Formats: sequence, C-alpha cells, structure tokens
Amino acid sequence: MASALRRLAPIARSLASGQRLHSTSAFRAEQNPLLLYTAQTPNGRKVSVLLEELKAARGLQYDVHKIDISAGTQKEPWFLKLNPNGRIPVLVDHARGGFTVFETAAILLYLEQHYDQERSFSFDPVSEADEYSVMLQWMVWAHGGLGPMQGQANHFKNAAPTEIPYAIQRYQDETKRLYGVLEMRLGDRDHLAGPGRGKYTISDMNAHPWVAGHQWAGIESLDQWPSLKRWFDRIADRPAVQAGFAVPE
Amino acid sequence: MASALRRLAPIARSLASGQRLHSTSAFRAEQNPLLLYTAQTPNGRKVSVLLEELKAARGLQYDVHKIDISAGTQKEPWFLKLNPNGRIPVLVDHARGGFTVFETAAILLYLEQHYDQERSFSFDPVSEADEYSVMLQWMVWAHGGLGPMQGQANHFKNAAPTEIPYAIQRYQDETKRLYGVLEMRLGDRDHLAGPGRGKYTISDMNAHPWVAGHQWAGIESLDQWPSLKRWFDRIADRPAVQAGFAVPE
Repeated sequence: MASALRRLAPIARSLASGQRLHSTSAFRAEQNPLLLYTAQTPNGRKVSVLLEELKAARGLQYDVHKIDISAGTQKEPWFLKLNPNGRIPVLVDHARGGFTVFETAAILLYLEQHYDQERSFSFDPVSEADEYSVMLQWMVWAHGGLGPMQGQANHFKNAAPTEIPYAIQRYQDETKRLYGVLEMRLGDRDHLAGPGRGKYTISDMNAHPWVAGHQWAGIESLDQWPSLKRWFDRIADRPAVQAGFAVPE
Repeated sequence: MASALRRLAPIARSLASGQRLHSTSAFRAEQNPLLLYTAQTPNGRKVSVLLEELKAARGLQYDVHKIDISAGTQKEPWFLKLNPNGRIPVLVDHARGGFTVFETAAILLYLEQHYDQERSFSFDPVSEADEYSVMLQWMVWAHGGLGPMQGQANHFKNAAPTEIPYAIQRYQDETKRLYGVLEMRLGDRDHLAGPGRGKYTISDMNAHPWVAGHQWAGIESLDQWPSLKRWFDRIADRPAVQAGFAVPE
C-alpha cells in the first residue's frame, strides 16, 4: 500500500492544479476515496482519530500517505500545490473530484459534513445550531490557542538553538492557563460540547492530541487538572483513538 | 448608550450562567438584540467589520460594550462567565435567548448563519459546500497561524521585558512567511475564497485586521507582497471596514 501510494506522487504532481486535484476515475478505481497526507503529530492525529472513529462506526476506509516532516517533504512544490502553507495534514477526496482540504479544523468539519451524515461526532448545523456553535467555539479555541501556544512551548524547550528561559516560561505558563480553561469547562461535564454532560465530538478530538503531548512541552503530568485528566484518560481509552495515534505506520 | 450599557454589567453578572446568558425580554425591549463586547484590536475588528458590513447591507443594528483590556476587565469573573478564556470579542445574542459566542471564527460563522441568510459575505454550507470549505480553510488558517504568530511578533517587539533578538526574528520571519502564503493565494485572485477571482467574505475580514497591524509587528510596509497589498488596500477602502475599525468609540 505504502509503495503504491508513493507511486501516486508524481501523478499527483502533474495533476495538481490549485485547490482541486483532478484524478482519473480509472486510475483511482481500486483505491479508497479519501487520501490523508499526514505524520504522527498532534495536528495529524486530530484527523486520523476522526477517520478511525468513522471507520469503527460505519466502515469508512481511507488511504494514508506518510509525510516525512523532518525531511521537509511538506515544503516540496508538489505538496505546496495541495497546501500552500506547507503543513500536514491534508485530505484529498477523490470521491468529490479530488477536492483538497487543509487546516485541521476545516478537515474535521468537512469529514463530518460529507462522511458522517448521522452527525455521530458533531451536531447538525441547522437543527442543532446552538450545540453546533458551542462545538465550533471550542474547536477554534484550541485551533488558535492551545495548538499554537503549546507548539511554541515545544519549540523553545526542544528545538530552539539556545535556552531562552523567558520564552520557555511564557509558553509553558500559557499552556497551563489553557489547560486551566479546559479544567473549568470539564468540571461538571464529560465532553467540551453538547447538552448535559456533553457528547464526544470533533471538539474533543481536536484538543485531545495536544493534551496528549503535554510532556513534550515540559508539563510533567496532568495531576493538577483532575477533570481534564479524567476527560483525557476516557478518550485515550477508545480503541479508535489508539488506532488514530498510530497513523501513519 | 455607553452609560446604559455600563449599567447592564451588574445585571449581566447576576444573570450569567455558563454558556447562556438569560435576560428578561422586558429589560432588553429597547435594546438591539446583538451585544458585542470588544476592544480595538485585530480580533475585535474582525467582528465589528462584519457587523458594520451587515449594517450597511441590510440595516442590522447592534450594541457595543467596550472592554478595557489594559485594565484587565476581560479577566474579571463576570466576563469569564461569558468567555472562560478571558478574551475579547464576545457576542451575546439576546434575540436567541442570550446565546453567547466567543472566538472570532465562531462569531463570524454564527453571524453569517443567523444574520446573513442571503450569505452576502459567505457561502451556503450545503448548496455551495466546496466554496464554503475553502472559505473555512482560509479562516482557520489565519485563526491558527497568522493571528497567533503575528501576535507573538507584537509581544516580543513591544511588550516583552527584555529584547530577545532570536524570538523577534522568529516571529517576524513566520509572519512574513504567512504574508507570502497570502501573496501566492492572491496572485490571480481578488479575495481568498470564491470562484474565479473570488468573493469578499468573512475569510477576508478575518485576515485583514491582522495585516492592518503589520507595523506593530515590526514589518514596515507591504511593498514586497504586491498582490497582498492590492487586496489590503481594496478592503481598507470600504466604508464599513473603516467604521468597524473605529469600534468601540
């Protein structure tokens, strides 16, 4: 499978044209409609977790193209045609004319719209408009805060050329503040969105892989946020989450 | 108006209960249904620009509650009940039971769903699904990249206690890279999303106030990104954008 997908790359390059990748239906006939370009990072795992949940819930199949981000593959011209921002993950939907989606929050919402019409992991935007908005609020909260700030904590702890204590402290403190916001939200709830104690949705899947990486950002344990920790453990126990974390192999 | 709104605050405090703020219809009878808590920042302006566009297009009226972020008003308990993250802007919709929305991308999408049924500034998520997704991709791209990274450039240039050249360079370089992504996207287009040369939507309104603040982040001019500059100037010329930038008074 992996070698078959590698053979796709030059064809994808020649076919790629802006937002839409036109493939020939004959060529894709024996493939699955969805192709995920990804790596084992928090952002990659958000999407592979949802794809595994959809596989477990209703048999959705997808292909994976592993991107070696340490080699900078995501900066190569053929990949920039899929995502001009040069970041994984990217989803290509060959069942919908090679439509291409980048940015995790947009991919999760796309998959829910087109591949989860029962909305098992989200809400209907019209008939459940308020719950949909709450879900969206917590998704973009993590997308604009938890992800970027914890990402900077990672950088200054692990990748910066010199130790910069002010910056390490700044981003660890901000990450802890954001965990505190999650703690408040989850104090009397099981999930970030949904009526009552909530429903497991893409807003949880969107935040969970970042919380899973807390040690990489220099946060030793989740013990000071007991509600967050319960939420984290409950999600981490799901077989589809474990399968999603192992993508790509 | 401003003093009337100030008088609302204690009542809002006593009524606030989690996500939903219950107001009495009698009390709100002479007010506009929408109340925006905001300050003159890039994030605040994203929402006030859309509200001004909707006012110009179809007479939508809204009230404004100015938040003094230099005084830390957004960290006060009554405000944290509106947004546990302690950030402006926050929108409260008294026409829909005091439903509260935080995070700019979620607010823009909420306003388009409930107050722009002709979708003058977005796309229909069902009948124009692909354009809607492209719009969403560029919105969350800015929400998770341009905003947070340019925000860090601002911090290290203007607010950090000591000059940290590595961090200043890091975030200015990243902001410039992101401007380069916009430049590529806008090379043969007038707007970020939409068919052909595109349509002016909330994905443009979402990115524009950050680009407007480029000098604050230490980027002297937009001259090296001519397509971005044309896009920027065209949007900056709109009366509703100028009105939105002046909110709150």
